[in-house]
Amino acid sequence: MTARPTDPLGRIYAEWTEEFIANPDMSLRLMRWLFEDWQRVTTEPEGVTYKSTEIGGVPGILVTPLTADPSQVLVFLHGGGFALGSSASHRKLAGHIAVACGTHAFVADFRRAPEHPYPAQLDDATAVFEALVADGTDPADITFVGDSAGASIAIATTLRLLQAGRPTPGLVITVSPWLDMENTGETLVSNDDTDFLIAREGLQGNIDRYLSGGADPTDPLVNPLYADFTGFPALYITASDIESLYADATRLHALAQDAGVDVTFDVAAGQQHVFPLQAGQLAAADAAIATIAQWYHTRRAANAHRTATQPATA
Amino acid sequence: MTARPTDPLGRIYAEWTEEFIANPDMSLRLMRWLFEDWQRVTTEPEGVTYKSTEIGGVPGILVTPLTADPSQVLVFLHGGGFALGSSASHRKLAGHIAVACGTHAFVADFRRAPEHPYPAQLDDATAVFEALVADGTDPADITFVGDSAGASIAIATTLRLLQAGRPTPGLVITVSPWLDMENTGETLVSNDDTDFLIAREGLQGNIDRYLSGGADPTDPLVNPLYADFTGFPALYITASDIESLYADATRLHALAQDAGVDVTFDVAAGQQHVFPLQAGQLAAADAAIATIAQWYHTRRAANAHRTATQPATA
Repeated sequence: MTARPTDPLGRIYAEWTEEFIANPDMSLRLMRWLFEDWQRVTTEPEGVTYKSTEIGGVPGILVTPLTADPSQVLVFLHGGGFALGSSASHRKLAGHIAVACGTHAFVADFRRAPEHPYPAQLDDATAVFEALVADGTDPADITFVGDSAGASIAIATTLRLLQAGRPTPGLVITVSPWLDMENTGETLVSNDDTDFLIAREGLQGNIDRYLSGGADPTDPLVNPLYADFTGFPALYITASDIESLYADATRLHALAQDAGVDVTFDVAAGQQHVFPLQAGQLAAADAAIATIAQWYHTRRAANAHRTATQPATA
Repeated sequence: MTARPTDPLGRIYAEWTEEFIANPDMSLRLMRWLFEDWQRVTTEPEGVTYKSTEIGGVPGILVTPLTADPSQVLVFLHGGGFALGSSASHRKLAGHIAVACGTHAFVADFRRAPEHPYPAQLDDATAVFEALVADGTDPADITFVGDSAGASIAIATTLRLLQAGRPTPGLVITVSPWLDMENTGETLVSNDDTDFLIAREGLQGNIDRYLSGGADPTDPLVNPLYADFTGFPALYITASDIESLYADATRLHALAQDAGVDVTFDVAAGQQHVFPLQAGQLAAADAAIATIAQWYHTRRAANAHRTATQPATA
């Protein structure tokens, strides 16, 4: 027997799934409009202004809480399987997190697959990061935030900067990360009944679009579950124990831990994929955002302390 | 030969139409997600904050420019044939108009047809208006703004308040009004090729949904083209000469003029239905909003003068 959704996000995912079943040949365009419906589960964060702009040539929405510290910025990389979702679907979630962290946020409309396969998404995230740094932002004041496929972009872009010997963002925050381009996680099966959005076939469609340029699903920048995380910045992970992609989060956590990364993993009980989208509508979403902000402030303070106590000759 | 769209809204309408043709049995739910795409053509208005709230029991988004006069409010009634559209699709348009007018705006999520046929939409607009007045807002400081079907709600609600001897909004602003529930306007035929969204069959579907409670398409509150506009507040109309619903605007203008209403009609050349949605993306949209704001400020000043010079015994 299939479980029934009881939260706003679960109900929306169940509606989407009904339409997917009724329209098995749904066009990508229609699917994109459908995924914009993500915005419906998030209330408007209060005291936030917006600007349609571009950073480093990448269009997006600059999110500015009235109380934001102008020196700090979250680069928000939205979910949607590299092919769906947008700054519009994630503007309010970014706003809630930015308010809690006391920062700006830039929700990037990176190029989407399949029109732009891997590595266009990493190139765009890099362009935003490099433009912010070129404009005088301290890399340590930049945090990558990514949900679902956006977490893959956040992590892989950071890994690529690291490999190139470039400065990286000071912190990386991931929500319901999707990393496994081989589509093998055991919770794809064990949590199939309790996750009202994600199913293996849908993931494969997005994998095919993302890798349509011929990239290898075991390339560590395509699939960070194959990456060496040594030297990776402080990493935050949250995911729910009943979502199909839970195994991606547990594997990421183990991998980062083994590499000595300062990694924090908060498991939410009984929530849907990217449950913080329900900010303002569901206590568990608000609590998750408060926890993310607490982690953000603690790690920022720790990084500042490390910098302050570093020998001047280092 | 069919004309080709050259503006952002025309291109979006052409995409929607392709999907309607490819999916002739598209569910109302899918159609609603598709119409949310309206938001895509509008840039984020700058210096505006938002709050998900309710007024008079009607949910919606309160739009607050940082520079807004707290005493003045636009009640924004969105288009979408009484069945589609939402506060999310029209939030940014309302924000641009609110910034230009220096007011708050409340974008009402009135109940939609067919789940809630006529007169639920008028009841909800009335509830918002009455709640604002009960909360101390001067009715003269309230302006109804409606695009497409929202213009019908704005006008009919004002007519109903007038008939009941109740205070009315001080001003009514309409954009590409849709009023004719008999579906007879001559421009439905003559402008069919140049309007990339509106066609008679689609309108009929919305009429059927709106009147599914058994209302008469010639009832003046269902179809304001049958109404007596005597005593109606100052009315602004803008529409484009190439849209299918242009005849609704010209008929409304003539009707209001014959009844001695202070009515202004600005005709835009060569634009699509509800072209001001392209605020920030198209000069003609920005110009239309500047003109609306100029009209707003002029009529506000005139109303204030009339009130100031009214004999105290009147």
